[in-house]
Amino acid sequence: MEGSNNNKTNREKFEWGKRAWELLSKVRTESPLIQCITNFVSMDLMANTLLSAGASPAMLHSIEEIPDFTPRVKALCLNVGTLSPDSVPAMVTAARLCSQLGIPWVLDPVAVSASSFRFDACLQLVTFKPTVIRGNASEIIALSSSSHQPSAAKGVDSTHKSTDAVEAAKLLAQTSGAIVAVSGATDIVTDGNQVVGAHNGVALMQKITATGCSVTALIAAFLAVVDKSHALEAVVSALSVFGVAGELGMKMAKGPASLRMHLIDALYGLDEATLHSHVNITSLC
Amino acid sequence: MEGSNNNKTNREKFEWGKRAWELLSKVRTESPLIQCITNFVSMDLMANTLLSAGASPAMLHSIEEIPDFTPRVKALCLNVGTLSPDSVPAMVTAARLCSQLGIPWVLDPVAVSASSFRFDACLQLVTFKPTVIRGNASEIIALSSSSHQPSAAKGVDSTHKSTDAVEAAKLLAQTSGAIVAVSGATDIVTDGNQVVGAHNGVALMQKITATGCSVTALIAAFLAVVDKSHALEAVVSALSVFGVAGELGMKMAKGPASLRMHLIDALYGLDEATLHSHVNITSLC
Amino acid sequence: MEGSNNNKTNREKFEWGKRAWELLSKVRTESPLIQCITNFVSMDLMANTLLSAGASPAMLHSIEEIPDFTPRVKALCLNVGTLSPDSVPAMVTAARLCSQLGIPWVLDPVAVSASSFRFDACLQLVTFKPTVIRGNASEIIALSSSSHQPSAAKGVDSTHKSTDAVEAAKLLAQTSGAIVAVSGATDIVTDGNQVVGAHNGVALMQKITATGCSVTALIAAFLAVVDKSHALEAVVSALSVFGVAGELGMKMAKGPASLRMHLIDALYGLDEATLHSHVNITSLC
Repeated sequence: MEGSNNNKTNREKFEWGKRAWELLSKVRTESPLIQCITNFVSMDLMANTLLSAGASPAMLHSIEEIPDFTPRVKALCLNVGTLSPDSVPAMVTAARLCSQLGIPWVLDPVAVSASSFRFDACLQLVTFKPTVIRGNASEIIALSSSSHQPSAAKGVDSTHKSTDAVEAAKLLAQTSGAIVAVSGATDIVTDGNQVVGAHNGVALMQKITATGCSVTALIAAFLAVVDKSHALEAVVSALSVFGVAGELGMKMAKGPASLRMHLIDALYGLDEATLHSHVNITSLC
Repeated sequence: MEGSNNNKTNREKFEWGKRAWELLSKVRTESPLIQCITNFVSMDLMANTLLSAGASPAMLHSIEEIPDFTPRVKALCLNVGTLSPDSVPAMVTAARLCSQLGIPWVLDPVAVSASSFRFDACLQLVTFKPTVIRGNASEIIALSSSSHQPSAAKGVDSTHKSTDAVEAAKLLAQTSGAIVAVSGATDIVTDGNQVVGAHNGVALMQKITATGCSVTALIAAFLAVVDKSHALEAVVSALSVFGVAGELGMKMAKGPASLRMHLIDALYGLDEATLHSHVNITSLC
Repeated sequence: MEGSNNNKTNREKFEWGKRAWELLSKVRTESPLIQCITNFVSMDLMANTLLSAGASPAMLHSIEEIPDFTPRVKALCLNVGTLSPDSVPAMVTAARLCSQLGIPWVLDPVAVSASSFRFDACLQLVTFKPTVIRGNASEIIALSSSSHQPSAAKGVDSTHKSTDAVEAAKLLAQTSGAIVAVSGATDIVTDGNQVVGAHNGVALMQKITATGCSVTALIAAFLAVVDKSHALEAVVSALSVFGVAGELGMKMAKGPASLRMHLIDALYGLDEATLHSHVNITSLC
């Protein structure tokens, strides 16, 4: 029985490794144009993550440019990390446009509990039907309730484990129609029904600013090369690929700053055999 | 006599090493939430400096979020590097709130002489009683006079040595009520009466953008774990710890970019024995 | 005949190597103050590029500060990467001031085709007589035509080779009065008449965000140490020096992130003999 389960798990991992490689290869070949309207802290690492994965980043954020530019992008990534009254209308306009045009888009509700201004902006953005919402456990739990609980979280770091947020993630997926991803020691991904876990990555990645923002951008790049029916696979694959890059980087790292460098180098150089042997994705229920 | 002075100096250094380690350990244990309203150049390195020291950075800067968020932070860091008409009211609101609530806050008057707009904004911020003001010698000299002298400084780099700014620093400390720190080959810290020198760090750190901004953020993190009566110790310790990380990083560096990486790695991995053997703090008068 | 051509080329390269070293040495000695009004993605790498070359960067961008500050700078770099309605008047004010005061300034028309808002802003800036315009081939081709062609380019990455843009560059130089530089495998520089090629650099530099922006800032630093009649030499030299730093960095790099680090270290440490043996500049017509 156990042997049979192991075989099933190994087969599953093998299939996921194959799928993750196919999608990364498509990103490298197609070099999709990904627009990011994001916080000022993460722009550099996000752009470099997208470039090292083979995508073409564009960090345009002015509402004046969105009607001309956004229809041409292959996916959009919205991140509320340094939200301001100026950026909300730009994000809303871009989200609405993507929703109307069938362009996939991802919401990263960074520190959603930081203020009612931010919480309300995130709730508003959710109404424009993001393809994916990715956050840490505290963010997903907060967003899955419909009222602002300022005490629930401390800044941008999670005070919950990802596995504590499975029910909240399923609920948010069901009410929003989005695939919901919860980052953590195990990354949880759900469409409200199926729950998949990506067990890649290393703890030290949390000591590098903008790794969460960057994997959200990578999710956008993977969404850009699949059709809507394969969105969940794209999300899980992106999370796993980024985690594998972190594991490879960790072998050379002496601290968070060298990990950041080696992670990006590893993402750029990732080959099929290495990816296959590291991908660790399993169905959770 | 000289032997006795040496013994006194060695005892002093030993006590400072012990204190610096205690405070760094408290930052790592308590992981204080530090809000930074800062310039766009330095956000990445500041956030990574705070993370590598064990603190929890939050770069929120919108005035809309400050009433909800700032009361929850353990310290605030304000930096005027890329000041704009939008950011002044946000900084004023956050500074006033911290002052009212007894939350320690630090002002970094980057390039204070660049314009009368910037000079006036800094003077206004000083009225909200910063716990600490940290700048280079040119900035502290400029801010200690109460009128804008545009010819006094060139951009963001100092044209004075820190030791030239001792009297200006004491004057500014006395008039503002803040502890004043002057970065340089020797970092000078004064409460207007006592003057302490931290002799750590390497010259090449000046060739990395945002190292000054980052040590200001680190000062905020150290202030967050002490009570007000120990603020001077926190400032001196933070300056020394950052300088020691630079010295350790320098052993591996081949230029400014690798120094930046190794400095952050070293700050993350700093252990008690290494810190003790490197801390070089002395009373100056 | 071929031998004679080779000799001519070698002599030309030798003279360019000498000139590039003279100019880099002047930047290191004079440490010119360079103002950058630039996009939020590139600020960190631009500032570090300027510092590692020996210049003094200042990223001030508020229109409130420009009348006080800009007259004191030695050169100005404008980059429209994350243009907004706020930044256009600041850029226009700074460009007009530099033009009036004879301060050299450089325009980087990043992704000029992204929107009509951006295209129009770039056309307006060109009327203030930039000393240099530097872009990739798609950007220069787009800007050389006087009407917005949204389909011509994809985001910030070029879809043309630099050598395809020679005629567009010459035309733009003639109509604008600027020296025009087109980055690519070969960097093309023209004053509308003479065309020079700098053949340094490595392809992987395109996988690092903000390398284009950073070399534009370096051009500004080189312009700051020559008089107007030597502007073309300054542009070619800056492009070649940055490319050589990339070549040296590439010897140690394992991917784009380590290349970024080693490039900056190499720029900082570049010595005369190494520069001489790597500079590869030739007249193209």
